[in-house]
Amino acid sequence: MSVWLQTKSWEEAKEAIKQSKGVAIVPIGSVEQHSYHLPVGTDTYVAMTIGEEAAEKTGAVLTPPVWFGWSPHHMVLPGTLTIRPEVLSELTYDIIKSLVAHGLNKIILINGHRIVNVVWMQLCAQKAQSELGCTVKIFDPAYMSKDIVKKLGFGPVGHAEEIETSHMMARYPDLVHLEKAVDNPIKDTPLYSVDPTYEHDTLCYVPSTLEHAKAAAEKSGGCTGKPSKADAERGQIYHDHLVENLVKVVKDLQNS
Amino acid sequence: MSVWLQTKSWEEAKEAIKQSKGVAIVPIGSVEQHSYHLPVGTDTYVAMTIGEEAAEKTGAVLTPPVWFGWSPHHMVLPGTLTIRPEVLSELTYDIIKSLVAHGLNKIILINGHRIVNVVWMQLCAQKAQSELGCTVKIFDPAYMSKDIVKKLGFGPVGHAEEIETSHMMARYPDLVHLEKAVDNPIKDTPLYSVDPTYEHDTLCYVPSTLEHAKAAAEKSGGCTGKPSKADAERGQIYHDHLVENLVKVVKDLQNS
Amino acid sequence: MSVWLQTKSWEEAKEAIKQSKGVAIVPIGSVEQHSYHLPVGTDTYVAMTIGEEAAEKTGAVLTPPVWFGWSPHHMVLPGTLTIRPEVLSELTYDIIKSLVAHGLNKIILINGHRIVNVVWMQLCAQKAQSELGCTVKIFDPAYMSKDIVKKLGFGPVGHAEEIETSHMMARYPDLVHLEKAVDNPIKDTPLYSVDPTYEHDTLCYVPSTLEHAKAAAEKSGGCTGKPSKADAERGQIYHDHLVENLVKVVKDLQNS
Amino acid sequence: MSVWLQTKSWEEAKEAIKQSKGVAIVPIGSVEQHSYHLPVGTDTYVAMTIGEEAAEKTGAVLTPPVWFGWSPHHMVLPGTLTIRPEVLSELTYDIIKSLVAHGLNKIILINGHRIVNVVWMQLCAQKAQSELGCTVKIFDPAYMSKDIVKKLGFGPVGHAEEIETSHMMARYPDLVHLEKAVDNPIKDTPLYSVDPTYEHDTLCYVPSTLEHAKAAAEKSGGCTGKPSKADAERGQIYHDHLVENLVKVVKDLQNS
Amino acid sequence: MSVWLQTKSWEEAKEAIKQSKGVAIVPIGSVEQHSYHLPVGTDTYVAMTIGEEAAEKTGAVLTPPVWFGWSPHHMVLPGTLTIRPEVLSELTYDIIKSLVAHGLNKIILINGHRIVNVVWMQLCAQKAQSELGCTVKIFDPAYMSKDIVKKLGFGPVGHAEEIETSHMMARYPDLVHLEKAVDNPIKDTPLYSVDPTYEHDTLCYVPSTLEHAKAAAEKSGGCTGKPSKADAERGQIYHDHLVENLVKVVKDLQNS
Amino acid sequence: MSVWLQTKSWEEAKEAIKQSKGVAIVPIGSVEQHSYHLPVGTDTYVAMTIGEEAAEKTGAVLTPPVWFGWSPHHMVLPGTLTIRPEVLSELTYDIIKSLVAHGLNKIILINGHRIVNVVWMQLCAQKAQSELGCTVKIFDPAYMSKDIVKKLGFGPVGHAEEIETSHMMARYPDLVHLEKAVDNPIKDTPLYSVDPTYEHDTLCYVPSTLEHAKAAAEKSGGCTGKPSKADAERGQIYHDHLVENLVKVVKDLQNS
Repeated sequence: MSVWLQTKSWEEAKEAIKQSKGVAIVPIGSVEQHSYHLPVGTDTYVAMTIGEEAAEKTGAVLTPPVWFGWSPHHMVLPGTLTIRPEVLSELTYDIIKSLVAHGLNKIILINGHRIVNVVWMQLCAQKAQSELGCTVKIFDPAYMSKDIVKKLGFGPVGHAEEIETSHMMARYPDLVHLEKAVDNPIKDTPLYSVDPTYEHDTLCYVPSTLEHAKAAAEKSGGCTGKPSKADAERGQIYHDHLVENLVKVVKDLQNS
Repeated sequence: MSVWLQTKSWEEAKEAIKQSKGVAIVPIGSVEQHSYHLPVGTDTYVAMTIGEEAAEKTGAVLTPPVWFGWSPHHMVLPGTLTIRPEVLSELTYDIIKSLVAHGLNKIILINGHRIVNVVWMQLCAQKAQSELGCTVKIFDPAYMSKDIVKKLGFGPVGHAEEIETSHMMARYPDLVHLEKAVDNPIKDTPLYSVDPTYEHDTLCYVPSTLEHAKAAAEKSGGCTGKPSKADAERGQIYHDHLVENLVKVVKDLQNS
Repeated sequence: MSVWLQTKSWEEAKEAIKQSKGVAIVPIGSVEQHSYHLPVGTDTYVAMTIGEEAAEKTGAVLTPPVWFGWSPHHMVLPGTLTIRPEVLSELTYDIIKSLVAHGLNKIILINGHRIVNVVWMQLCAQKAQSELGCTVKIFDPAYMSKDIVKKLGFGPVGHAEEIETSHMMARYPDLVHLEKAVDNPIKDTPLYSVDPTYEHDTLCYVPSTLEHAKAAAEKSGGCTGKPSKADAERGQIYHDHLVENLVKVVKDLQNS
Repeated sequence: MSVWLQTKSWEEAKEAIKQSKGVAIVPIGSVEQHSYHLPVGTDTYVAMTIGEEAAEKTGAVLTPPVWFGWSPHHMVLPGTLTIRPEVLSELTYDIIKSLVAHGLNKIILINGHRIVNVVWMQLCAQKAQSELGCTVKIFDPAYMSKDIVKKLGFGPVGHAEEIETSHMMARYPDLVHLEKAVDNPIKDTPLYSVDPTYEHDTLCYVPSTLEHAKAAAEKSGGCTGKPSKADAERGQIYHDHLVENLVKVVKDLQNS
Repeated sequence: MSVWLQTKSWEEAKEAIKQSKGVAIVPIGSVEQHSYHLPVGTDTYVAMTIGEEAAEKTGAVLTPPVWFGWSPHHMVLPGTLTIRPEVLSELTYDIIKSLVAHGLNKIILINGHRIVNVVWMQLCAQKAQSELGCTVKIFDPAYMSKDIVKKLGFGPVGHAEEIETSHMMARYPDLVHLEKAVDNPIKDTPLYSVDPTYEHDTLCYVPSTLEHAKAAAEKSGGCTGKPSKADAERGQIYHDHLVENLVKVVKDLQNS
Repeated sequence: MSVWLQTKSWEEAKEAIKQSKGVAIVPIGSVEQHSYHLPVGTDTYVAMTIGEEAAEKTGAVLTPPVWFGWSPHHMVLPGTLTIRPEVLSELTYDIIKSLVAHGLNKIILINGHRIVNVVWMQLCAQKAQSELGCTVKIFDPAYMSKDIVKKLGFGPVGHAEEIETSHMMARYPDLVHLEKAVDNPIKDTPLYSVDPTYEHDTLCYVPSTLEHAKAAAEKSGGCTGKPSKADAERGQIYHDHLVENLVKVVKDLQNS
């Protein structure tokens, strides 16, 4: 039987809530350009596959995904949909509020969108924690894979790069066109890095402007990084690492 | 190849936009109790299946679904998620704004949720039309099946009733537990009917309060109507009728 | 003595509240073009005359009218004033909140504006019911006259048409210039009708754009329908029917 | 023929706009307790009668009244309706925006409510002036009668006092019950006066709290001042003075 | 030891709160052009010096200043920063809410900006009083110096005029360049005065438009009034008068 | 002559804007408990001293500080003032908008508050960049000192810890009471670290709840880290490093 909430009748949902020990997972992604070789839904697919596997292993309730994210700069390429961050924050707040009303007061937001979505999720999480009396955790693959990324020898976090591509190859091979990938190696910018694993002085992240995003769009179809180096094997190891971390987070919450 | 936007790279999206003649379909539903026999995701599943088939027949662009709707009264039963109508309106506005930015300026919102969601969609549609210079149509199964429902001898529109159940049986048989269905025949209330096909004097629709929703919850697990009379065959005819109407609406827009 | 709240001292208001058994009526209309032959205040006048007569017959409290409505498309002609629906919703919410504070917790909103205003009233009514613990009914002449309109042989609901014109002729003859009326017969649009009595498949109502409204403005001075067929006699019967229905709604609330 | 906009067809409105030289008057009041002897609609009646007479003398366009004002403290007595100031500001902004769209870009807001409403009108007026490129004036009887009030020997501005009562006796004698009036003489509060004619050091006005408003309610039925000294004769002189000032303001705008 | 809250550890703050008997002072000003001879921070400096001296004499808690005000019209000259009034109102509301949480429920807002800021402060004060159960007073130098201004023979309230200039000369002599001052005598405008001490009929204050502000900018570098007549001696007397009044207000609150 | 904008007349501001090559610095901090040994204004003092020194070295325009930050969890101890993040974002947006209007379209927000304020600054910066066509950088001491902190052997980033305390000792020695400092060593939490220099897997930062903040409050007066190890010498080196980085960022903008 599927772990997704949407497939269950309310009686089945009731039973699932009971089994979950109060933990719900909300996968959140984006619809945004991922260069020539990955689908625009990549971020949401990533959040869904991690969430689904962890839910199966722990009994956490798994809500339908929020397909839409904050991607103002990626509007430079067709297929991207961008939602204002305050709207996403309110939407997610209402999802959390509904979950809490049914006794699910330990919420994990999975952010398949990396970095950008984190901002509004932090606002949402703080508001939910203080107004609804629940616990909210933000699980972001980029922050949650610092150890494994080093180990696997992946290059830095960019966009549609080696890491994301490997992950998609492992989990959704039919949606990847590796043969179309164009590398756009990440160059050091003085005092600025988007990568959460960056160890030197840096200004804080702000989403690029449309103008800046055009450069990457023209150069490599919207990619920053080296997708050509991707492979499914490391993608699966990376995936398993994320799932393992998510399972730990769920179990900690279930036992708290 | 799938018609869903999320599965496409931006180059494939670009081509799809070109083929669509400017028409995009956005399936919108809800996650709310649908009695003992239907899944909480019913409304979104309904919007998805109609949208997918019409997109295949017309080349319209099909966005990922908005899984969440306005269901304050159904919070009486577990598994329901409700979002404030102003949040849904802003979310959908931003989806439309993004679509328009890519040249998709003829938008069809499919409302799998019937009646309730219509309200905020009207606000969203008016705002989008006047501010973004696009055309927005609201396609609602209850309003778009008045003719066929009469013909098929279905009872009145309620909740998780004969019509919805037949539709789900035809399209998602694995998610229906007809054996669990409990009938809750719709009684006439003087001067009040929720059914858009009702031909007599009536007050306007306002979503029930939690208190009133409890009655149906206790009586029939949240159903109003006679799901026991449902069958897949009429469900398929009903479905085909809706798809045919949607195809007509798409083609009219493509030719306008 | 007048039934209007604004004419009473607070002591008289206190007594009226007591007599009302908790029921208040709020007439809401619009200031918008009604073609060559009707005044721009028509919608509010309609709501006022129905409300006043029902208040006299039942002892319900009658508040001053909200003169302003949502009429974005009618801005095409001078004299129209349009208010954003979210502003009207908040305004009416505060009126209801004030009434509830004085013990009037059964509220009837009369919508003289038909169709358009219904949208924001639904949002307002739901919010008021769930946050203020009151009961809110939306009384709309178009929905509340389906039976009598058929009986009287009136044509379909349009704008400044036979029905509205007859009603105004019966109640405010001095404000009607029937000799100026220009007919603009309503043609069937495939899969779209604004009329709540329409019995076939239809997309949901969305207010016209300014561009579309120009067509009717140029053709018939803003009318859709056949005002030339109007007469005061049927207008009075129509009026009496609406008042009778409103009296029923008030009494049901008083006895609940 | 009536000067009120609501009574005119759009053709008549068009002609009236032309005659007005761009000036529109919007009467705004409140529905709030005015002690035992005046109706709750007093503030709106005052704004209406001044506006109507000035419109007749100048050809300015006169909109229907906004019956509702900001009266949080007067909720202590029944019949009072209070609207949040930000809602009133947005409502009035939309009225102005509509007027400007029809070429009426010199707006006079008449504030029958004195002092309290001034606050949100200032916000509204500034926003309208800077965003809509129009001119907005706020005409408040208390500020616009400093000279005549001294001359007539009226006591200080309070609530339902000598001045307001005299005005209502002159203009709406049927709505005044002078025999019920109870005096509540205004005492000096150190460093605080609500009266715009006060000539000494003072803190700025802030509406009373409900708690403070209870005192006046219990003592004199909600009056502060000496209504017993009112008479229609001085009320008419006061009225004529206000109309004369308003006519001056209109003419200055018409000639600017 | 400094009376400013920002200099204290929380233990010192705790003790200061205890000594204050619940009274906190919040100095609020603006950053806006003050002609050739005064700094753009004048309004905040004024609020700070009054607040500091009164806090020293009474033990009231003194928060850091809000440096920013509402100055849309003064944007005509460089160095001006203007914040929307609704933002300032919400900011100040949150400051008050935080103070109330620590037991400081008698708040005095000092408005160094005169007239303009008063508007949003009134909204903020009313909201805070009704929602937070605290007392809020608005202390504005122009309203609180009516008596002394007459006595000292100062001219009318304008901008960067004799009064403000004298005050700054007494308290911040290093920031004043009197030799650069250009007079721009205030002429009577029929039925309009900004001065709270004006004793005749007047429309209510609305901030100038950018267009109107240009006139004063070009004529006198943004001044209205006669700064050339300023002197430090009267400035100090004026200052002492304001401090004395503020001390009275604080003590009244401490004893209430 | 002072570099602070508030001290300048508009003519001096005009000249300063010219010299700045379009760069403005906005220091933003907080008023929140910093344990027994640091003042509640610490975060703003830190932003001010870095900003002032860099402005002196580069000619960038320096605005008055925003004294207030987002500190919901620190409300557990007296003296803390917390502002909602959306209010701070709108306030800072308006400051930026005003600066841009005067030709300062390269803005640096200095965040003395570390981590927490970053969230709303990111929203503000993105909005300003896309709507106002300016460049906005967020300069945060914790992100901008990763290199020097390692070199100096400072412990991890906490609150009122060794780093902040050393910085304050170097720049505002009179406001530090090192003798009162109580250590509260930072323990590893599995999969969670607030420190931007943390190199392992982690959930994303969410501000603590009031309940969690109580623990640190009770244990160490609100400190996390080892302030007892602080010294002014390393504080000055740390300060110089930050100033040097800020000067680099300013110069890069001036040359862009």
